[in-house]
Amino acid sequence: MERKVLIIDCADAPGLITKITGVCFAHGLNIIKNSEFVDNAQGRFFMRTELEGPAFANSLLTELQTVLPEKNQTRLVDAGKKRVVIMVTKEAHCLGDILIKSYSDALDIEIAAVIGNHQVLQPLVEKFDLPFHYISHEGLNRHEHEAMMLDVIANYRPDYILLAKFMRVLTPEFVSQYPSKIINIHHSFLPAFIGAAPYKQAWERGVKIIGATAHFVTNSLDEGPIIKQDVIPVDHSFSAEDLARCGRDVEKSVLSKALHLVVNEDVIVYGNKTVVF
Amino acid sequence: MERKVLIIDCADAPGLITKITGVCFAHGLNIIKNSEFVDNAQGRFFMRTELEGPAFANSLLTELQTVLPEKNQTRLVDAGKKRVVIMVTKEAHCLGDILIKSYSDALDIEIAAVIGNHQVLQPLVEKFDLPFHYISHEGLNRHEHEAMMLDVIANYRPDYILLAKFMRVLTPEFVSQYPSKIINIHHSFLPAFIGAAPYKQAWERGVKIIGATAHFVTNSLDEGPIIKQDVIPVDHSFSAEDLARCGRDVEKSVLSKALHLVVNEDVIVYGNKTVVF
Amino acid sequence: MERKVLIIDCADAPGLITKITGVCFAHGLNIIKNSEFVDNAQGRFFMRTELEGPAFANSLLTELQTVLPEKNQTRLVDAGKKRVVIMVTKEAHCLGDILIKSYSDALDIEIAAVIGNHQVLQPLVEKFDLPFHYISHEGLNRHEHEAMMLDVIANYRPDYILLAKFMRVLTPEFVSQYPSKIINIHHSFLPAFIGAAPYKQAWERGVKIIGATAHFVTNSLDEGPIIKQDVIPVDHSFSAEDLARCGRDVEKSVLSKALHLVVNEDVIVYGNKTVVF
Amino acid sequence: MERKVLIIDCADAPGLITKITGVCFAHGLNIIKNSEFVDNAQGRFFMRTELEGPAFANSLLTELQTVLPEKNQTRLVDAGKKRVVIMVTKEAHCLGDILIKSYSDALDIEIAAVIGNHQVLQPLVEKFDLPFHYISHEGLNRHEHEAMMLDVIANYRPDYILLAKFMRVLTPEFVSQYPSKIINIHHSFLPAFIGAAPYKQAWERGVKIIGATAHFVTNSLDEGPIIKQDVIPVDHSFSAEDLARCGRDVEKSVLSKALHLVVNEDVIVYGNKTVVF
Repeated sequence: MERKVLIIDCADAPGLITKITGVCFAHGLNIIKNSEFVDNAQGRFFMRTELEGPAFANSLLTELQTVLPEKNQTRLVDAGKKRVVIMVTKEAHCLGDILIKSYSDALDIEIAAVIGNHQVLQPLVEKFDLPFHYISHEGLNRHEHEAMMLDVIANYRPDYILLAKFMRVLTPEFVSQYPSKIINIHHSFLPAFIGAAPYKQAWERGVKIIGATAHFVTNSLDEGPIIKQDVIPVDHSFSAEDLARCGRDVEKSVLSKALHLVVNEDVIVYGNKTVVF
Repeated sequence: MERKVLIIDCADAPGLITKITGVCFAHGLNIIKNSEFVDNAQGRFFMRTELEGPAFANSLLTELQTVLPEKNQTRLVDAGKKRVVIMVTKEAHCLGDILIKSYSDALDIEIAAVIGNHQVLQPLVEKFDLPFHYISHEGLNRHEHEAMMLDVIANYRPDYILLAKFMRVLTPEFVSQYPSKIINIHHSFLPAFIGAAPYKQAWERGVKIIGATAHFVTNSLDEGPIIKQDVIPVDHSFSAEDLARCGRDVEKSVLSKALHLVVNEDVIVYGNKTVVF
Repeated sequence: MERKVLIIDCADAPGLITKITGVCFAHGLNIIKNSEFVDNAQGRFFMRTELEGPAFANSLLTELQTVLPEKNQTRLVDAGKKRVVIMVTKEAHCLGDILIKSYSDALDIEIAAVIGNHQVLQPLVEKFDLPFHYISHEGLNRHEHEAMMLDVIANYRPDYILLAKFMRVLTPEFVSQYPSKIINIHHSFLPAFIGAAPYKQAWERGVKIIGATAHFVTNSLDEGPIIKQDVIPVDHSFSAEDLARCGRDVEKSVLSKALHLVVNEDVIVYGNKTVVF
Repeated sequence: MERKVLIIDCADAPGLITKITGVCFAHGLNIIKNSEFVDNAQGRFFMRTELEGPAFANSLLTELQTVLPEKNQTRLVDAGKKRVVIMVTKEAHCLGDILIKSYSDALDIEIAAVIGNHQVLQPLVEKFDLPFHYISHEGLNRHEHEAMMLDVIANYRPDYILLAKFMRVLTPEFVSQYPSKIINIHHSFLPAFIGAAPYKQAWERGVKIIGATAHFVTNSLDEGPIIKQDVIPVDHSFSAEDLARCGRDVEKSVLSKALHLVVNEDVIVYGNKTVVF
């Protein structure tokens, strides 16, 4: 038995579920799990269906097109591990968590490589027998630096790029190469404390809760579609450093949960938002 | 346009979604929202569908029966307010919250009446111009007391009975009159601290989190299907009284959320569990 | 036995705890509970001490001054109920929660009166036999409207003013009459979504968590010292209205917890932050 | 400047704070941070004080004894890293998290060694250049197996022993060698689901929240003083395996937070409870 995930994003129309599941049923496919969502405000239909069957005929997608509205976005994705390239700077907590989870098969990913603009995390990556590419930005302009990284990334043909505390802003040119494929962890509860030193900002504001946000990267810094957020309570006795220390635990937890959702094909991006089934 | 909720609980079978939504589509009904769940371990299929259309023909349920496995449980429920009888003892927090929410239309319920085995909450209920029935258990055996309450309840033909800190155990005879219709708030994170004085038990055990559980009442005390649970962090500085005070906030919040889910037809009971869409 | 709370806020200095508790001990007072906090970054010392004794001599505060640094802020507050004036507009959820809690002695407050710039909540308030003052802003300029409200408030000599979804911005002139005495609930997780229609902003941003913030009111709108914050998880299926509905539960819970902390003398304001013991 | 933590646990008595801080002050020590708690129900006083000074005279503890009630438990602990021996079976998640945190100096510990009754985690431990002792229980009775482990542990003179998913019950003889020094993570929200297969129990009960509990090990299985607990929401769609997968994230987070508290000297054990400052 083979297993795949069908993802559909199209204009809403009467009878869509009947027609779509009808095509699957006619193909001898069993629905393991099915989720739909209709954004009534925008008249948009989203569906995620886990299918199982002896074989998936090529005609499945063609026949689905005959029942779907035009301009639909439909994909049929293999279950199984996704290839991920991780980009880092100096901080170990998010990278370390992903390494351990991948090592112990707790995430359905294959880490293709890690790219760092600093060298400090190389020993940690190599403990796990994974390639580490040190690509310093020193002496390079932004364009040159990104071109070097894009070259390395292209070789690995990743399904997703994970920014695990990569502390440089990517240009629209970089981002446009991997639309809805780059996942970032923002060390803040977006949209609060956008930009630099969010824990210092949080400390100065005297907030009683801090959080982290995992999102897809778009051209607007800190503004891409949010995948996952979480928070922890804090109090007056936390210094800015304490906030950062506790924040790191939330960051790694949120990033790793977001990655799990994405590689499990639970996330559909539309506009600047996500449907997370 | 009319709006109803279709609830189906049956053995799993291939093509169920296609067939069910096909019948609805043929009846000119639009699916506003659809949720399914398959319990693969037990081969059981659950579906909740919000339908909208100019009219709901009587033939809808008959035709659905032709496509559903035998022994299915299928119901079509009107959207709109549900009638609720509330049973209380002495504590005001859960009752008060429901009164305010009902008063300000924040819950889709009509409070038919409140029954108390003590009189202390009568003034609060009467502020809201609702009938309060004081039915003391003093001098009565359990059977006599319940018979009196059942008489009063029957007059109101409630959709649901809410035990808002009603501190007496109901007999199987009582419960069997309203299967999956009686909602209780248990002042504990079930299955921990079953039985009496849970906050004292929690304090003695030195737990760092306390919680509350809303569940349907079955014949086994504290053992019915769980609808909703929530918790709050506590610490060593909380006395048993502090635990109880903070616990009351969780209790009222959990009970009111559970009631919202139930009257919104989001909850399906099966065995000793619930599907909450 | 009498019970009071001693609050001290002063520059940090060696031996402060010894000296302060020494004075209390010499006065025959027993320390029931003691909390201190030193903000090392700013060299500031905060202390909250619950004292019990047969009598509190007038000389206690005088003698404390001999051991404290200059420019300290020291107060000795009676335990017991605080007088509160509540200001509202149209929404019942926060007001209703406070009314029920006060009615059932779950908050150490005496509600002196409720002021509304709309009349819609008058019947609810009068159910609890409390004075409701309808002071419309129609046909008045801001100064005139505030003057009328200040007159009414002054008559009640409140310890605190609670803005329970009072939807008008107060002028600096109003606020300056009650420094660190006006508590507001902001329907957002500050500093995110400052200003109007925060739930619509949250919906448009596609956030996965929403929250509420209780804070003291200062001259800067939405910018006063934060007392309490809390959040709930949300997802793509929530409309802006759903966000608002769930948000109301967080708002009322956060406001009522903040009020409990404030009337319990657990909160010290300093600069734009709070110490919450 | 030297820094130490003073921990005092004694019968409550008037003037204790004055006297204790007075002795510290007389020794030229500055109080960086101070926390006390009085368990009024049991008349017990607990204090944790971070002290800083040019030197800590030996006479400090002697002089403290002159002001403290008899049978007090007083200790003065160096700030700095604590030595930890970790015991494991087969699961990597808790061990992996501690390894990464220790590697990146996010926990104030030195991992002296890891002991496994299975060999599967040896490669992971050796990536971090740490000794792994494979001590199988096969063919040994419980006493022989524990004797072998105790021998290895004794060589490392650990401050604490961490059971990071060590799946064998320790005998009272073992536990009595390290009272209040062995920290366990229980894969459940104690006291619910004591014993084996808690996630299966949770699934069968249909709970809506699962949790984990870190506690000191005493002679009663699953019954020692609780240090830290946390929970996550779950729903009907979670299989027992899903519960276990999500539970592992909570387990590792709770264990690592508990370890941080313990090595930071924030935890005082008394009876079967903890004070966590």
